Amino acid sequence: MERVTATYLIETPLPVDRAAATLAGEQSSGTFVAVPGETEELKQRFAARVEHIEPLGAVPSPSLPTGRSPAADYQQARVSVSWSIENFGCNLPTLVSTLQGNLYELAQFSGLRLLDFDVPPSFAAAFRGPRFGVEGTRRLTGVTGRPLIGTIIKPSIGLSPEQTAAMVATLAEAGIDFVKDDELMANPPHSPFDARVDAIMRVVNAHADRTGKKVMVAFNISDELDPMLRHYDKVVRAGGTGVMVSLNSVGLAGTKKVTDQGALSVHGHRNGWGMLNRHPMLGMEFAAYQKLWRLAGVDQLHVNGIANKFWEPDESVVRSITACLRPFLGGTVLPVVSSGQWGGQAPETFRLTRTVDLLYMAGGGIMAHPDGAAAGVRALRVWWEAAVQGLTVAEAVQTYPELAVSVAKFGKSG
Amino acid sequence: MERVTATYLIETPLPVDRAAATLAGEQSSGTFVAVPGETEELKQRFAARVEHIEPLGAVPSPSLPTGRSPAADYQQARVSVSWSIENFGCNLPTLVSTLQGNLYELAQFSGLRLLDFDVPPSFAAAFRGPRFGVEGTRRLTGVTGRPLIGTIIKPSIGLSPEQTAAMVATLAEAGIDFVKDDELMANPPHSPFDARVDAIMRVVNAHADRTGKKVMVAFNISDELDPMLRHYDKVVRAGGTGVMVSLNSVGLAGTKKVTDQGALSVHGHRNGWGMLNRHPMLGMEFAAYQKLWRLAGVDQLHVNGIANKFWEPDESVVRSITACLRPFLGGTVLPVVSSGQWGGQAPETFRLTRTVDLLYMAGGGIMAHPDGAAAGVRALRVWWEAAVQGLTVAEAVQTYPELAVSVAKFGKSG
Repeated sequence: MERVTATYLIETPLPVDRAAATLAGEQSSGTFVAVPGETEELKQRFAARVEHIEPLGAVPSPSLPTGRSPAADYQQARVSVSWSIENFGCNLPTLVSTLQGNLYELAQFSGLRLLDFDVPPSFAAAFRGPRFGVEGTRRLTGVTGRPLIGTIIKPSIGLSPEQTAAMVATLAEAGIDFVKDDELMANPPHSPFDARVDAIMRVVNAHADRTGKKVMVAFNISDELDPMLRHYDKVVRAGGTGVMVSLNSVGLAGTKKVTDQGALSVHGHRNGWGMLNRHPMLGMEFAAYQKLWRLAGVDQLHVNGIANKFWEPDESVVRSITACLRPFLGGTVLPVVSSGQWGGQAPETFRLTRTVDLLYMAGGGIMAHPDGAAAGVRALRVWWEAAVQGLTVAEAVQTYPELAVSVAKFGKSG
Repeated sequence: MERVTATYLIETPLPVDRAAATLAGEQSSGTFVAVPGETEELKQRFAARVEHIEPLGAVPSPSLPTGRSPAADYQQARVSVSWSIENFGCNLPTLVSTLQGNLYELAQFSGLRLLDFDVPPSFAAAFRGPRFGVEGTRRLTGVTGRPLIGTIIKPSIGLSPEQTAAMVATLAEAGIDFVKDDELMANPPHSPFDARVDAIMRVVNAHADRTGKKVMVAFNISDELDPMLRHYDKVVRAGGTGVMVSLNSVGLAGTKKVTDQGALSVHGHRNGWGMLNRHPMLGMEFAAYQKLWRLAGVDQLHVNGIANKFWEPDESVVRSITACLRPFLGGTVLPVVSSGQWGGQAPETFRLTRTVDLLYMAGGGIMAHPDGAAAGVRALRVWWEAAVQGLTVAEAVQTYPELAVSVAKFGKSG
């Protein structure tokens, strides 16, 4: 029988092998005393199996509260565990409950983090993964050979549909590939979803008729299920090519239902992610997180950016980009680079990842460019040309003097 | 215009008022440079407002990594922020994105935890909250004046539908009020959902015909949306009264769609919760979490238990129970007490909460009772009688000598 494997970073006051056995037990048989009916045959068939333990040494104090008296020390280890797919079948939420369940609450662990997991080949038949991903999103936007350049409508909240459409018109004229709503902007009274789609798609469609280039607008449909599907259909009918979902706020079942519609590229916003990832001994790594959302069919996934305004170190961002572009379910998901990006990070981003398969988002970096939005978009494209040529920021400015303006304006924030 | 208010525990290397302003800014206007269109009028109307700051002193080192050089110290504070409901309307996922968003990733915070939030009266019209809650679940099970006694089918995984039904028959005979699937057991190949419902409901319905008492079985429907709704209907058609959803794995949109069906009491399992709650300076308090799931209409919500097998201290469990029973949207949600419970914790649970409005779950505590499951259920009821009489464990055993058996068997684990 095929198996799902997961790797955890654990920290425990117990001997590591006993802690690993507890983890496996909790996530398969799981009770505190032996009960009738729990036969040896049944245990053999359904028990989670500890596949590998790599001890990582001890620390003197617990990373997380344990509710127990202090131990002499706390062992850290990398532990791999596997389950027969007979335990859950192809059921995404139950896969998550199996990978995580009550593990994070066990007093036997003073730290527990899901690092990664792997699914067997049969999952690729049950879960098609992103329908659009890198290739599909490129096809819908007509962008090849360079990152898609995108931006977020700012201010996040408060513009009317007409004001927003006027801004999209400016951005389309400026040559933008992609525009998204902010995650705070979905269907508020002052900018009703349908009116916003109508106003914006009039602009986008007119621009496409004139130039042949259709800007992808990721309308934020995040909501309860029925309005999400209604708004999705509205975007389809209006000739749109994308929607956005706040993944953590909507959840796996709702998001999967959206991606199953199959007509639009789905932009996955990971707001709330810090809660799951920021403490190094709790939650999960992005390597695991991005697989869950690829199973849910999301086409584009936020990965933060180099020299970002958040806490995350660059090397973590690089690992996230790499994870998105590693094949899974036979495809890839488009990494969305954002957070304080203005172009000057392009050389370092390319140097560290060697890819242009990115959606590169700049907010203020475009709209606040001293020479206007068109100059902002143009600068981003040039920054990426320079990046792919292997130029540093200084060399880029040398070769493309127009970039000096963005360095002067944004260099200190970036 | 009505406002939503949220309270956070923060930790920051910045002056507290500046950090609070950053928090409010990120969750309303949110970009790193001023952009055209962000007028003063618009800021006034849509900006999140810092309502209150209560400084809590400083700590020498950051609770979470900041990705920045060390500061002299880190200020902790309780901060209240409010938003006009004009920012999001009655949109549950977008409310969540507004309350949390990218906050947990900001380098300006070395700790951030959502403590609680409040919604204005108009939300009670848009969100009906739990349809069954305490009163409805009591009505469906016919239990009054004492906690509902429940159990989990164990082993968690591996039993066939017939074996499971045989166990439910034993439990029904034993006088149980409530039975649930484990969170690891949904619709696996060896126990297909429909076959399990058929087998179990034959037993439950026959027992109800004979005795007038219908055991509530919370069938775990956690899955993608279409199978969840299909399985929900299956339970309705089979005469069932409950289903279970793994809340964090399914998500808000999927869960709300389930509760909107309105025919069954929905048991909310919080597996994965430790990830959101275990670090004291990250994630959220249960006070906030339970409100989100009440907005999503969940009727029963796990709160752990006194002297549990997890890390959580008793006082936190008590706060959770109290939160569930505090009116919100004009109703309550039934607190589900579980984890290593065997009856001996009843006196302390009652002493600390003064309520019998609980679903009191015991797994091994029932099935592994030395005199069988019926004795196990009987003992739990007696433990609760003793608890309500104000007896301690020792006094309870004095008054009800049959309780000595459970103390001898489980006293050490409990």
